[in-house]
Amino acid sequence: MKNPCIICVAITGSVPKKANNPAVPVTISEQIESTHAAFEAGASIAHCHVRNDDETPTSDPEKFARLKEGLEKHCPGMIIQLSTGGRSGAGNERGGMLPLRPDMASLSVGSNNFPTRVYENPPDLVNWLASEMKTYDVKPEIEAFDLSHIVQATRMQADGRLNGPLYVQFVMGVKNAMPVDKEIFDFYIKTLNRLAPDALWCGAGVGPGQIMVNEWSIAAGGHTRT
Amino acid sequence: MKNPCIICVAITGSVPKKANNPAVPVTISEQIESTHAAFEAGASIAHCHVRNDDETPTSDPEKFARLKEGLEKHCPGMIIQLSTGGRSGAGNERGGMLPLRPDMASLSVGSNNFPTRVYENPPDLVNWLASEMKTYDVKPEIEAFDLSHIVQATRMQADGRLNGPLYVQFVMGVKNAMPVDKEIFDFYIKTLNRLAPDALWCGAGVGPGQIMVNEWSIAAGGHTRT
Ligand SMILES: [Zn+2]
Ligand SMILES: [Zn+2]
Ligand SMILES: [Zn+2]
Ligand SMILES: [Zn+2]
Repeated sequence: MKNPCIICVAITGSVPKKANNPAVPVTISEQIESTHAAFEAGASIAHCHVRNDDETPTSDPEKFARLKEGLEKHCPGMIIQLSTGGRSGAGNERGGMLPLRPDMASLSVGSNNFPTRVYENPPDLVNWLASEMKTYDVKPEIEAFDLSHIVQATRMQADGRLNGPLYVQFVMGVKNAMPVDKEIFDFYIKTLNRLAPDALWCGAGVGPGQIMVNEWSIAAGGHTRT
Repeated sequence: MKNPCIICVAITGSVPKKANNPAVPVTISEQIESTHAAFEAGASIAHCHVRNDDETPTSDPEKFARLKEGLEKHCPGMIIQLSTGGRSGAGNERGGMLPLRPDMASLSVGSNNFPTRVYENPPDLVNWLASEMKTYDVKPEIEAFDLSHIVQATRMQADGRLNGPLYVQFVMGVKNAMPVDKEIFDFYIKTLNRLAPDALWCGAGVGPGQIMVNEWSIAAGGHTRT
């Protein structure tokens, strides 16, 4: 196999709590064991969020440091990707863990609606997070919630704000943003290939669309999020 | 000609001032005369913003009422479209002119980045503006700054939040949002036709891309904004 599929496992996310699903790993030790199991099963990127003691999301760099240390010990060789997503903090807090120099970090480059609110990624914050990632040699995973986010990432590569090759995740199935739609999925791939021929991509379906987007991604020769 | 092209003239906008271009109509009487000239030249929709005495944008319903009254007198039969855009007010202020029952009003159904900030259209506000437009029998022009906004409008028609047929404007050329891109323009048309076959659409290029998007729109059998 020339081009193996990279499976990225999002073990915790920022939303679900034990009350929603008792299997969600929330403490650092639960997260390490859950990631270890996924690593053994073939996942090669761990997409990580951390939580407060009351299970609410946080961007606390100290928590991220403990998780990263545990993952490096239990899952040697696994790629560690820390979330800079907006559900876990506001403004520059969102990049407070980047000095830990994880292999990767998520990066949103545009704004969009979420189920009940605006997912705010103002241009100044995007540019600051991108420059911090360059400073600390962190590879961004671009979270594309809409078509213009893909275009914006390619512009940021062209003008040097992002290093190539890009690694772009297509996020589908978020209410009030982009649904799980095969024609749009295909156009995402086509547009990324046109504007950044060296880019890699990964498909992520949220909720009930997860398996379908996994299948589309694997069939199209891309990578996927589980 | 079976299907004449509708030209919508945006006479003032919310940004440019006399210092940027002395020809920008800012006072109500300047706006009325400028719209009259465009109407005589063939424009059939007037997209209207109003300004304070210092030229900053406002959503003041009293100003909109005076403009509407003047346009009805000077441009009989012209379609009057009032802006509910976010540069002129915040929250429910943005819909304060809808009880004037203009023929149309602009409606953003998603959020995106603008050159220096987030253009915030939270789901609750979008739903409230849409319901006010139904209450006052105002036809929305959907402002699509990104692909998911087109999809969202079709969902809102499907579940009854918007009356069909939709009238959707593709806005291209806004920095940090969607650029002027022909393949994406064509995909916008294809996606709208697929998801809402009875919809009408209009192309708007901001700044240097304006004439190009006008040409693409006319060639593709759509309507256009000038
Ligand atoms: Zn995440
Ligand atoms: Zn272990
Ligand atoms: Zn406007
Ligand atoms: Zn006149």
